[in-house]
Amino acid sequence: MTKELKGIAASDGVATAKAYLLVQPDLSFSKSTIDDAQKEIDRLHTALDQSNSELETIRAKAAESLGEEEAQVFDAHMMILADPEFTGAIETQIKDDSVNAESALKSVSDGFITTFEAMTDNPYMQERAADIRDVSTRVLAHLLGRSLPNPALIDSEVIVVAHDLTPSDTAQLNKKFVKAFVTDIGGRTAHSAIMARSLEIPAVVGTDEVTKDVTNGQTLTVNGLTGEVTIDPSADQIAASEKAAKDYAAQKAEWAQLKTAKTITADGKHFELGANIGTPKDLDGVLANGAEAIGLYRTEFLYMDSSELPSEEDQFQAYKQVLEAMNPKPVVVRTMDIGGDKKLPYLPLPAEDNPFLGYRAIRISLDRQDIFRTQLRALIRASAFGNLRIMFPMIGTINEFKAAKKIFLEEKDKLVQEGVKVSDNIQTGMMMEIPAAAVLADQFAKVADFFSIGTNDLIQYTMAADRGNERVSYLYQPYNPSILRLVKHIIDSAHKEGKWAGMCGEAAGDPIMVPILMGMGLDEFSMSATSVLRVRSQMKHLSAEYMQTLAERAVTESTTNEDNEKLVAEFTAEDK
Amino acid sequence: MTKELKGIAASDGVATAKAYLLVQPDLSFSKSTIDDAQKEIDRLHTALDQSNSELETIRAKAAESLGEEEAQVFDAHMMILADPEFTGAIETQIKDDSVNAESALKSVSDGFITTFEAMTDNPYMQERAADIRDVSTRVLAHLLGRSLPNPALIDSEVIVVAHDLTPSDTAQLNKKFVKAFVTDIGGRTAHSAIMARSLEIPAVVGTDEVTKDVTNGQTLTVNGLTGEVTIDPSADQIAASEKAAKDYAAQKAEWAQLKTAKTITADGKHFELGANIGTPKDLDGVLANGAEAIGLYRTEFLYMDSSELPSEEDQFQAYKQVLEAMNPKPVVVRTMDIGGDKKLPYLPLPAEDNPFLGYRAIRISLDRQDIFRTQLRALIRASAFGNLRIMFPMIGTINEFKAAKKIFLEEKDKLVQEGVKVSDNIQTGMMMEIPAAAVLADQFAKVADFFSIGTNDLIQYTMAADRGNERVSYLYQPYNPSILRLVKHIIDSAHKEGKWAGMCGEAAGDPIMVPILMGMGLDEFSMSATSVLRVRSQMKHLSAEYMQTLAERAVTESTTNEDNEKLVAEFTAEDK
Repeated sequence: MTKELKGIAASDGVATAKAYLLVQPDLSFSKSTIDDAQKEIDRLHTALDQSNSELETIRAKAAESLGEEEAQVFDAHMMILADPEFTGAIETQIKDDSVNAESALKSVSDGFITTFEAMTDNPYMQERAADIRDVSTRVLAHLLGRSLPNPALIDSEVIVVAHDLTPSDTAQLNKKFVKAFVTDIGGRTAHSAIMARSLEIPAVVGTDEVTKDVTNGQTLTVNGLTGEVTIDPSADQIAASEKAAKDYAAQKAEWAQLKTAKTITADGKHFELGANIGTPKDLDGVLANGAEAIGLYRTEFLYMDSSELPSEEDQFQAYKQVLEAMNPKPVVVRTMDIGGDKKLPYLPLPAEDNPFLGYRAIRISLDRQDIFRTQLRALIRASAFGNLRIMFPMIGTINEFKAAKKIFLEEKDKLVQEGVKVSDNIQTGMMMEIPAAAVLADQFAKVADFFSIGTNDLIQYTMAADRGNERVSYLYQPYNPSILRLVKHIIDSAHKEGKWAGMCGEAAGDPIMVPILMGMGLDEFSMSATSVLRVRSQMKHLSAEYMQTLAERAVTESTTNEDNEKLVAEFTAEDK
Repeated sequence: MTKELKGIAASDGVATAKAYLLVQPDLSFSKSTIDDAQKEIDRLHTALDQSNSELETIRAKAAESLGEEEAQVFDAHMMILADPEFTGAIETQIKDDSVNAESALKSVSDGFITTFEAMTDNPYMQERAADIRDVSTRVLAHLLGRSLPNPALIDSEVIVVAHDLTPSDTAQLNKKFVKAFVTDIGGRTAHSAIMARSLEIPAVVGTDEVTKDVTNGQTLTVNGLTGEVTIDPSADQIAASEKAAKDYAAQKAEWAQLKTAKTITADGKHFELGANIGTPKDLDGVLANGAEAIGLYRTEFLYMDSSELPSEEDQFQAYKQVLEAMNPKPVVVRTMDIGGDKKLPYLPLPAEDNPFLGYRAIRISLDRQDIFRTQLRALIRASAFGNLRIMFPMIGTINEFKAAKKIFLEEKDKLVQEGVKVSDNIQTGMMMEIPAAAVLADQFAKVADFFSIGTNDLIQYTMAADRGNERVSYLYQPYNPSILRLVKHIIDSAHKEGKWAGMCGEAAGDPIMVPILMGMGLDEFSMSATSVLRVRSQMKHLSAEYMQTLAERAVTESTTNEDNEKLVAEFTAEDK
């Protein structure tokens, strides 16, 4: 029977295909006392063998469709299956306690998982815990004669339906066959949503119940532009969905023509559209989508993808590659933003009760100047090869900015004295993501060369709501007048001192936010590369001057997030 | 040799006495293989017996000097010593693994602690983990022939010197003998500092190194007004300290005369000075210190001191007692503020990555309306007995306030229809502790009857720094112009709508903050009862009008916390 669901539109596009349910089967079992230990041990070994040959198949498939790196996780799984410490402990428990294999497996793997997870300072052991959990689930499924979903084995066109998608789930999906995602939970900033946009796969998240309503193989239509999902659609609905897909494709073709165009509004004003990147590998997408700048280069990936602190030379090469490729377009490089939810295996940080309110980003850099100075030297050396702007993350006080700037100047002076060629024109700016800095933006504008607003953090701190916490996700309100007032104050303060203000958070590419930000006169919008052409097209149809009235009303008349959603709808409808 | 240290002045007063070092002795040992298991088991039992008789002594002493309730923790410790599951496991390990008693004790207790601590949703088991840690440390000390500090056994005048003081340490201290505290770590808002102020014991915290510099029995002078500590002082220094103690006593006597006075500034303006309380037991201190109101009644203690959700009747009785005692003075009751770092054993909440940014306070109340409505009914019934003002904590959006207010009105209507006598004049206001609410205070002032600024949370969210995290404690900056701007906006917004604004955070009684808040026209200052007379005396010497200039400059000219410390010093020096 046809059923319609409404979720959060998380990645643009429209698709129709059969559902592939990525959910765990029921793996419950009872603990029982057994007489014949050898029989249980034999059952265990059969399940271990089945799991191993299944993993071999998955691994081969994953290597072929996703690449060698993604496939290596399965090697780790097979190593656990072959580890006598693991299997031996299960056998011993079957024999000594006369329990069934399921129970012994669960007890032994729980023991390992608890021990490894308790090592909270050691991300490597935490990952091992996750591996053991995955493997023992697979063995348990075989013991119980049930089959697990194996996303890496998908080889026909499907729409993946899941409670949520973890990074390891998404790593196993082959974009060729996965036409869309639909999930129960998550918001526009969830990992799965960001991944969907980067892969350009339509996605609807936060439907609450899709996994309950859908069975494997049912036809679905998914509209990632509106958040609508139809289960078992009628022929008319399928036709409508196919038309929407066609329209979207046409729209994308129109956007593609904007690739080399400047970003100009209906009334002739120019805004700079930049892209956010994590590694030099992302440059292809930046160039393919005609971004006018890199508004955020997240250097923490250099640290996270490494097994030790990256050397000055390694960093220099990465920065140089990006600066050269973009030259003379500007590249805003954010210094290391580690801590919070981002950890480095080789830089153990103390466990914290509230890591998002803790030791992270510039707070670490000012404390660990050895790391900071190495990064700054690499950046300053690279400055000779393009248009570099350095940005400090998580600045909360004027003294922090001054301290960071002073270290930058010291390293620059040293390099000049060493005879190294450096640019004389490196801007030094800051992320605006801490409420204290936003409130005091007029003072910061006197010392910083530019601001870039980080909406995810700014919203989470201003609303006092962890952006990853489902229970308070209703407080992630980008259009709340309190957030917009801070954004406006940041922009106005920059302009008053002749500086520029950008935004590099998710909101910069959000179709509801864009008109408001245009009205506030934001200078630079930096977003996923795949959003650039859509936003360029949107701006082409809007008058910047008219949006000023919208922006003014959004911060003076509105009292809620919803008020502003309505206000934007009103202003952009009239404007067309 | 004389040595001077400077820490943070955390609790007023001056003292001279001998040091009592509350630090762990070295309890390191090596694991060794033993031949004679019985000998190790005998050693174990000797240590268990010694620990038990020591605990009996401590328990008796604690019951006598601190009360039965505080003494009960030692019963829990003795029960562990007598638990055959615990001692048996150690014996088995000595026998089976042929290891020394120290090693077996450590291994068994670590196992229990890990298991219990992993139950993160169960505060009861977490407390058991702490108990096992305490007990096994005691047994280990006896095995190694070392002696632990036993604060409950202190029976002569001392100054306690510790790295930090935990709640269980402070519970064991007898105020009669403990003349002051000095600690290595902590700030003015640390538990030990709050406890010291409530016990009226001078304290200096955050000295970094006091435990390294002091040996047991050395003479110390401690000045809790200036943060100065002198180790092994000269005769002159002792005399100076004694004079300072005398001056402080004289000052306190002068303050005592203000007990029945109104709070009037040098230029004749009145401010309301209230006290913060946790339970009706705190009423004595409120009345003894001449508070003009209760500006914050933290009702979560009703929930935390109970083994189940407190009934409507139990809550009614507690609220009525406070309202009657204060009548006709106002009592601001804050609805349940659970979550964050406050947990209820009988209300398991999901583990959160960042509990301070999570499911807490009004967010729980609006979700768990069963709990919220019970509390509101108890409050509304109690309103007939005094001057009740209800305050909602952690309000971040207008919709949250409206939802809470609506539920309040529904319960009030129901009670009226049931024929219950209720006040017609119950104000409903809100904590101002989330930056989003502070920024939008002008809109909130249209719907709320009053604001009360919660500085601890407002600062922690605005600065994005966990107030309990040592690594970012430098960001706890109450005088940062960003914080002061928000405070000013809150006060101005309230006044514009004819509402009143108070402050019930630590800062309301802070001598540096008071002049600024006077200048901003804050209506009500609510603080520890023991600070009321000091602040009343301070206000008597200051001109409210002159402080307006201070307040204005603090938010326009200053750029840092330190700027404002200097500015206040300048303005209050001239004003005298």
